[in-house]
Amino acid sequence: MAEPLNITTIEQMEADTARLKETACQVCAETWEDRVKAQTPHCKFGEDGVCCKNCSMGPCRITPKAPRGICGADAHAIAARNYVRTVAAGTSAHSDHAREILHVLHSASRDGNYQIRDELKLIRLAEEWGVPTEGRDIYDIGHEVAELGLEEFGKAFGEMRFPSRATEERQKLWRSEDIWPRAIDREVVTTMHMTHMGNSADAEALIRQGLRTSISNGWGGSMLGTEITDILFGTPTVWTTEGNLGVLEADMVNLVVHGHDPAFSEMLVTACEDRELVEYARSKGAKGINVVGLCCTANEIAMRHGVRMAGNFLQQENVVLTGAVEMMCVDVQCIFPALASLTQCFHTKFVTSSPIARIPGSQYVEFKPETALEQAKMLAREAIDNYENRDASKMYIPPTKQTATVGYPTEQIIKHLDNVTNSHVEVTGSYRPVIDAVKAGVLRGAVAIVGCNNPRVRPDFSHFEIMKELIENDILIVATGCAAQMATKAGLLNKDAKNMCGDGLRRVCELVDIPPILHMGACVDISRMMLLATGIARDWGVDTTQIPVVGCAPEWMSEKAVSIANYVVSTGIDVYLGIEPQVKGSSQMMELITDGTRKITGAGFIINTDPHQLVKNIIDGIEAKRAALGI
Amino acid sequence: MAEPLNITTIEQMEADTARLKETACQVCAETWEDRVKAQTPHCKFGEDGVCCKNCSMGPCRITPKAPRGICGADAHAIAARNYVRTVAAGTSAHSDHAREILHVLHSASRDGNYQIRDELKLIRLAEEWGVPTEGRDIYDIGHEVAELGLEEFGKAFGEMRFPSRATEERQKLWRSEDIWPRAIDREVVTTMHMTHMGNSADAEALIRQGLRTSISNGWGGSMLGTEITDILFGTPTVWTTEGNLGVLEADMVNLVVHGHDPAFSEMLVTACEDRELVEYARSKGAKGINVVGLCCTANEIAMRHGVRMAGNFLQQENVVLTGAVEMMCVDVQCIFPALASLTQCFHTKFVTSSPIARIPGSQYVEFKPETALEQAKMLAREAIDNYENRDASKMYIPPTKQTATVGYPTEQIIKHLDNVTNSHVEVTGSYRPVIDAVKAGVLRGAVAIVGCNNPRVRPDFSHFEIMKELIENDILIVATGCAAQMATKAGLLNKDAKNMCGDGLRRVCELVDIPPILHMGACVDISRMMLLATGIARDWGVDTTQIPVVGCAPEWMSEKAVSIANYVVSTGIDVYLGIEPQVKGSSQMMELITDGTRKITGAGFIINTDPHQLVKNIIDGIEAKRAALGI
Repeated sequence: MAEPLNITTIEQMEADTARLKETACQVCAETWEDRVKAQTPHCKFGEDGVCCKNCSMGPCRITPKAPRGICGADAHAIAARNYVRTVAAGTSAHSDHAREILHVLHSASRDGNYQIRDELKLIRLAEEWGVPTEGRDIYDIGHEVAELGLEEFGKAFGEMRFPSRATEERQKLWRSEDIWPRAIDREVVTTMHMTHMGNSADAEALIRQGLRTSISNGWGGSMLGTEITDILFGTPTVWTTEGNLGVLEADMVNLVVHGHDPAFSEMLVTACEDRELVEYARSKGAKGINVVGLCCTANEIAMRHGVRMAGNFLQQENVVLTGAVEMMCVDVQCIFPALASLTQCFHTKFVTSSPIARIPGSQYVEFKPETALEQAKMLAREAIDNYENRDASKMYIPPTKQTATVGYPTEQIIKHLDNVTNSHVEVTGSYRPVIDAVKAGVLRGAVAIVGCNNPRVRPDFSHFEIMKELIENDILIVATGCAAQMATKAGLLNKDAKNMCGDGLRRVCELVDIPPILHMGACVDISRMMLLATGIARDWGVDTTQIPVVGCAPEWMSEKAVSIANYVVSTGIDVYLGIEPQVKGSSQMMELITDGTRKITGAGFIINTDPHQLVKNIIDGIEAKRAALGI
Repeated sequence: MAEPLNITTIEQMEADTARLKETACQVCAETWEDRVKAQTPHCKFGEDGVCCKNCSMGPCRITPKAPRGICGADAHAIAARNYVRTVAAGTSAHSDHAREILHVLHSASRDGNYQIRDELKLIRLAEEWGVPTEGRDIYDIGHEVAELGLEEFGKAFGEMRFPSRATEERQKLWRSEDIWPRAIDREVVTTMHMTHMGNSADAEALIRQGLRTSISNGWGGSMLGTEITDILFGTPTVWTTEGNLGVLEADMVNLVVHGHDPAFSEMLVTACEDRELVEYARSKGAKGINVVGLCCTANEIAMRHGVRMAGNFLQQENVVLTGAVEMMCVDVQCIFPALASLTQCFHTKFVTSSPIARIPGSQYVEFKPETALEQAKMLAREAIDNYENRDASKMYIPPTKQTATVGYPTEQIIKHLDNVTNSHVEVTGSYRPVIDAVKAGVLRGAVAIVGCNNPRVRPDFSHFEIMKELIENDILIVATGCAAQMATKAGLLNKDAKNMCGDGLRRVCELVDIPPILHMGACVDISRMMLLATGIARDWGVDTTQIPVVGCAPEWMSEKAVSIANYVVSTGIDVYLGIEPQVKGSSQMMELITDGTRKITGAGFIINTDPHQLVKNIIDGIEAKRAALGI
């Protein structure tokens, strides 16, 4: 099996990082590598989850000689409390992002800064929610849908709406296990209350509340975030774009957008297409304005505009170290506060825009829907003005980049499948072709590879190894977030990557005209994956827990990732983790997250810090699912 | 100044504890004293607030050699994030308690388990909120008020209602500083989002969000909890009762209620008054059923039924160690999980009742409004059946107890003041008499002493010393929570305690017929204190920050306490703390909580771990407020 020539290896990526590290030394800047060294070894109590800071009698730490905290909480109670607070924080982050987007929809108007771009999707959602659509102005419908969406956060009675999109079996299970969430914010607050001193010390009760909270994210906040973003900015379509540091341009004004909430970056993209501003950039000696993305903001705008992607989470300092960035504009989440001091070593302007993510040393421009375009243009102009301040002696842009085909939300997947369906004899709009391929064994199954990268392991390496081995084994991959960006950087989103696949997957790629790894978006878009799995299960006539589809987060890092992993498990889908959740100090918690949840939701975590072992576990898991289905 | 003969000193309380510790040794049980020893010394990073566990790249800990976490967050960012998460957790606890009570009101019916007892208070609240009352059934009004109350948690638009009860100046300030909260749950979620990896690293922005979140508690959740509890169970009135371990009875069935939410304990009190059950207890050889309270549940039912109080937070194990408790029924918050194993050393049944506080080793009876009385009777019967299982060899009830006059919500304070008002020439229903006394210097001011007790210091000692010294200096005290219980145990809620006061305060106590320390309720009732201070300020014609009234939490322990301290500061009232907030590792945070908030709200923390120094600080603070007012 010939490897395509254009794969970028981890070693090549590391060489670029090493070269940029020289610039860091030159300007006396520290990077995450230095801070990891200074922070190692990590506190064992924290790593094991047995340090409790939930009251001022402590902190308490569990040891063989001190098996209980002052209140009597044991390792299990403490690890469980810490763990579900993590779920609460992750749920808050993803969902609060959705709330912002809902408010943008609520303020959208035909002649305002934000318009409704996917009217069909809005009407479908309105119909799902019983909002009248006949003869109404699309903006009235949009505003009413926004109000109903916002109710999902705080309704006092009833229960959440989107969980009823799950399979019948799942819905029944969520009811019988009493984990159907009531409202997003309420579940977070309940979790915070349960973990307050003097409340729950029962690890299983806490785990169950963690599941309920996570469902309010995956089948609530995140799903709202995705739906409403599509309505506002358009449902993503397939684009060919490029990724890695080489997308920065030596002779253009480089404006980097970084974060998660696309309301800001969408507007910056629009502003930078403004002819007047492009002319202005030219008047300053640049060839134009080059907007590129970082982290999930990159995923959002790549899928909607083909904007190029500079890299994932641990690449954020590298981007600045090129010395070629006129401005980095950030919104929320995964922003290193370190960017403030690092950008000060260069001419780079560091602009924060959200009250949620205030960073000392940044230039704060509070972004508001009503003044969004104006603010975006003002910032673009400032970036252009900054072009002349570049210091050539500090500038080096690694030329490394890859072509990537991105933008496969469920709608695009269905569309591609419809192309191979014989519409004379078969139903279109179904996952039947992929189910048939799986049943026939041409595809063995699918894996959703998601999550961050993390210096606890060799960054990106696990992603790379696992992806490579899975596609070799005829397992299709869907990817989001930093995992998708890693695939971008490596060249695995190039359609040529079919040549790295097993025969079955290669044939599927050729037939359907897709790369073997489908880019589904940002980390908030893992909700798309839940709908994909649900659609496949429904068309198959089984529950989500039965299909040979699993999740994998080889290098997860954030609290959001813990919330995601929990809602994936709640959906009945096993999650393979390459980083250990911080509960090792409690045997009960280790049992609960691996096997205990299996008794509740039919799925659990499989943890293995060796990526090659982990990929074996995944393949075994998929084959076991197949065997259970008799295929 | 003659001390009244019946004061119980800390030494006497400690002697009782020491005697009960002998029983603990006899049954091989550990108590908090043992666990404190095992947990000491505490982790310095945790104590200083510079340990970050908010992502799995870490934990990171700040040291001179590692001044930044892996993401670049410094000590200030980390301490601020940890601190405001504490505020979020405390706000969640208090407010979620209110939500439960609102749901009870929503389900209340004339012939159900829960009725509306204070119709006048309900009507006043309905009118405040614009709910029609004329000619409507009181239960219809109650249900509509409950719905509006529940909206305070999750409304998508607008802002919270109760902050408009504050002084005009305060309202203006909360608006101009942008800390008027939007909805309770939303502020918690915003705080969790801001503190998620990659978001806010700006300590001041975080502190401001902490203030806003705390206002959603003090002028939201807690205030709702208090109002609705009064509506359901009656606004407290003055009762003479008793407190300390001596309230347990050797020849009665002892049923202890412990926690915070009175919905459960109210029903147990009612059940245990049932003639049939009392007869049943007698048939089992007991003289009757003795319901006593612990922690804030005790405060709730003492103020409404005169039920006696067995003790505060750190007394919870002592109560079990008497060997005389047939059943301990708990609801939520401040419950030691240690009670499970401790009660197993005795015949004591340990009953948990709330999904919020699940404790392994307890008997779980999920308490529901619709079956509440039936469940309470079932439990009382079980407690009675357990009477015969007492083991006399393990039984010792310290005889120590004190008489206490409790139950001074604002309504009772006004009523007492009206009694000394010459209604022919003066307006009744005003705080004018107390203002006049303060202006005249007969009273120097007032201190709200609140909060838990905490083994970080000699438990109860700081409360005792500070209370004694303040009343000697003609400073009236209002107390809630474990502070109020400490005063109960010591005998300071006895009207005879006037003999420990300075001449001025003694005269006031005699004239108004009150003890020098007014018991205002549970920790959720600190909202009553906010209304008291607001009422005084309004009648004075000044803002709350100007009157010589301050707060003091000498031995605070819980995250709720941090939320409370923040809303008191938000209300413009200085808070004197005897335990250091865990932010010492950040000079910026130390500055922000002591002086920084002063620039925002006009108040801050004054921290001193020496109670005698702290009381001096308080007196100086009160005298400075007086001087500024020109009195």
